[in-house]
Amino acid sequence: MQFTLKKEDVSSQARLGYIETQHGNIETPIFMPVGTRAAVKTLTPQNLLDINAQIILGNTYHLMLRPGMDVIEAAGGLHSFMNWQRPILTDSGGFQVFSLSDLNKITDEGVTFRSHIDGTKYFLGPNESMAIQRTLGSDIVMVFDQCSPCPCEKKDVEAALARTLKWERQCRDYDLQAHQNLFAIVQGGTYADLRIQCAKELASLDFEGFAIGGLSVGEPAEMMYDMIDVVEPHLPKEKPRYLMGVGTPRNIIEAVKRGVDMFDCVMPTRNARNGTAFTWQGKVSIKAGKYRKDFTPLDPELDCYTSQFSKAYIRHLLNVDEITGLTLVTIQNLAFYLDFMKALRQSIIDETFNDFYERICAIYPT
Amino acid sequence: MQFTLKKEDVSSQARLGYIETQHGNIETPIFMPVGTRAAVKTLTPQNLLDINAQIILGNTYHLMLRPGMDVIEAAGGLHSFMNWQRPILTDSGGFQVFSLSDLNKITDEGVTFRSHIDGTKYFLGPNESMAIQRTLGSDIVMVFDQCSPCPCEKKDVEAALARTLKWERQCRDYDLQAHQNLFAIVQGGTYADLRIQCAKELASLDFEGFAIGGLSVGEPAEMMYDMIDVVEPHLPKEKPRYLMGVGTPRNIIEAVKRGVDMFDCVMPTRNARNGTAFTWQGKVSIKAGKYRKDFTPLDPELDCYTSQFSKAYIRHLLNVDEITGLTLVTIQNLAFYLDFMKALRQSIIDETFNDFYERICAIYPT
Repeated sequence: MQFTLKKEDVSSQARLGYIETQHGNIETPIFMPVGTRAAVKTLTPQNLLDINAQIILGNTYHLMLRPGMDVIEAAGGLHSFMNWQRPILTDSGGFQVFSLSDLNKITDEGVTFRSHIDGTKYFLGPNESMAIQRTLGSDIVMVFDQCSPCPCEKKDVEAALARTLKWERQCRDYDLQAHQNLFAIVQGGTYADLRIQCAKELASLDFEGFAIGGLSVGEPAEMMYDMIDVVEPHLPKEKPRYLMGVGTPRNIIEAVKRGVDMFDCVMPTRNARNGTAFTWQGKVSIKAGKYRKDFTPLDPELDCYTSQFSKAYIRHLLNVDEITGLTLVTIQNLAFYLDFMKALRQSIIDETFNDFYERICAIYPT
Repeated sequence: MQFTLKKEDVSSQARLGYIETQHGNIETPIFMPVGTRAAVKTLTPQNLLDINAQIILGNTYHLMLRPGMDVIEAAGGLHSFMNWQRPILTDSGGFQVFSLSDLNKITDEGVTFRSHIDGTKYFLGPNESMAIQRTLGSDIVMVFDQCSPCPCEKKDVEAALARTLKWERQCRDYDLQAHQNLFAIVQGGTYADLRIQCAKELASLDFEGFAIGGLSVGEPAEMMYDMIDVVEPHLPKEKPRYLMGVGTPRNIIEAVKRGVDMFDCVMPTRNARNGTAFTWQGKVSIKAGKYRKDFTPLDPELDCYTSQFSKAYIRHLLNVDEITGLTLVTIQNLAFYLDFMKALRQSIIDETFNDFYERICAIYPT
């Protein structure tokens, strides 16, 4: 994998970059749609190509439970299994193990847990996570880490961090496939000194990219921005930075302003299924009665497949529980997120990032 | 609307035809995907274009309840509302009023009923049904009829038939839009004499096509085939014939063999959502454990978007309740139905209909 830093914004930490992987190239800053269980919910891979998704996410925890790694291995990896030939990033399973499963026991070797589906007992540690992601064949592999909840006492964050740093080294020493690239994850909760310590230590090691994890877990947005500010100076400039699980357009542009390159979040897909559309005019609650006879498109400033349909039609589909409605709003939301990132990249090129930032803050105040 | 009878099979009643409408042309025999509430379930109009659906159905009863006719009227009709520019056939609402709603009262003027959604009271008679379908702007409009259940005593079928014939004449006298075409419906339950009487009377009137209704409502398939045999000689050869709500590939080919040109059924779409695929190799219960590591396509003899995915992947999607799986199987099933109709038409051209009939009977015994 090759990361090229093409341009740095004059008035902020915003960066324009380019990642080359064996499965294709990625322009940064980028948003990565989430395909938890080998599908971006309600969409086909063709829908993702149509909106020019450059990279998507898969989730180790969900895929190890179902279909199970023997199936993915027999399929020849996740790209082949789900018929997606562009880049894939997989997470390590750490976050889900701590947030979704019935935890049995954490040791320095890893975590024993029970599946949230059927109670089956599993063990996942750094070696197991690497083995799974090796089988998945993702282009970007995330280290196995322990996320601290928020709030969390400092001594507990310290303990989790010490364990995480040990695990990250183990992951780094694991033999992945030749085309795979390992990203480190900076943890440390909301403690600036721990974040800095972690970032420094990881930066000294040989990783292909650096993620900031354990944020967007309930802390105020300002605290998240502060943590990025604290960490950023200690991350190598020549490697991509990824803020995990974030967020709103406002969250994203605040992070880009602070030097982050990559993002993923279930918000555009999940909110679509609740009837909330992201548009260039702000959020639209498409089920609202006022759209009953509104035959204008959901987003007159966006050109995507959903633009062919009226608000009245999409509202009708959601009101009568037609799945087609979920698909159309999901296309809208991801197309908007990707168009937003494209406009953001263009603003760095045009040296109008500050104006663009103001525009987004006006449309998406939070 | 222009119907051209292009060829008649030498060894059966099967016919090859061509319908020209203002919204496009239809090759017969044809299968029409059902888009009850202004959407073919789980699909976008683009998916329907990709599988070359030539005409789809909309349902008067469902659309009058939601979104309501004021919305469709404001949209400029159903084509515009749902962004489907090819032909649409709408039913009259009769079948659903009798099968879905809380019936209040049937008179010679029509039916008072309560919505199955929220209990709102409505009145639907021949004039109301025509007014609604005029607003929908469908290319093919169905007369308002009273369906008899099965079994039903002869005197009750006679009474329903008398009322239906009166209603059909009223519908015929209604002033539809210039591009719209009215189809009559032959009723009469499973009583051959009533069916013949009805067919003869309707054939003497000026309709653009003739449907056979009130079948596939629980009677044995043989009885349905018998009723088609009984009715067919009394239908004008130069007009298309439509068997409503039918059915399996076997049902369809039996009806084509008996001179029917048009079909609709929820089976391919509904069964898709239950995990049953229609393929050139027969029905496939795609959730079955034996497909867990089967990386062959669902139907190696069919070329559609779903052919890009493996049985193992589709099985996984259905097992984890990913909507994408429902979409992929729905595409498969409708693509198969349309490919089946195309092959059927080709067999009439090639004068190999009997061989094709034998092949279908072997794959779809029922």
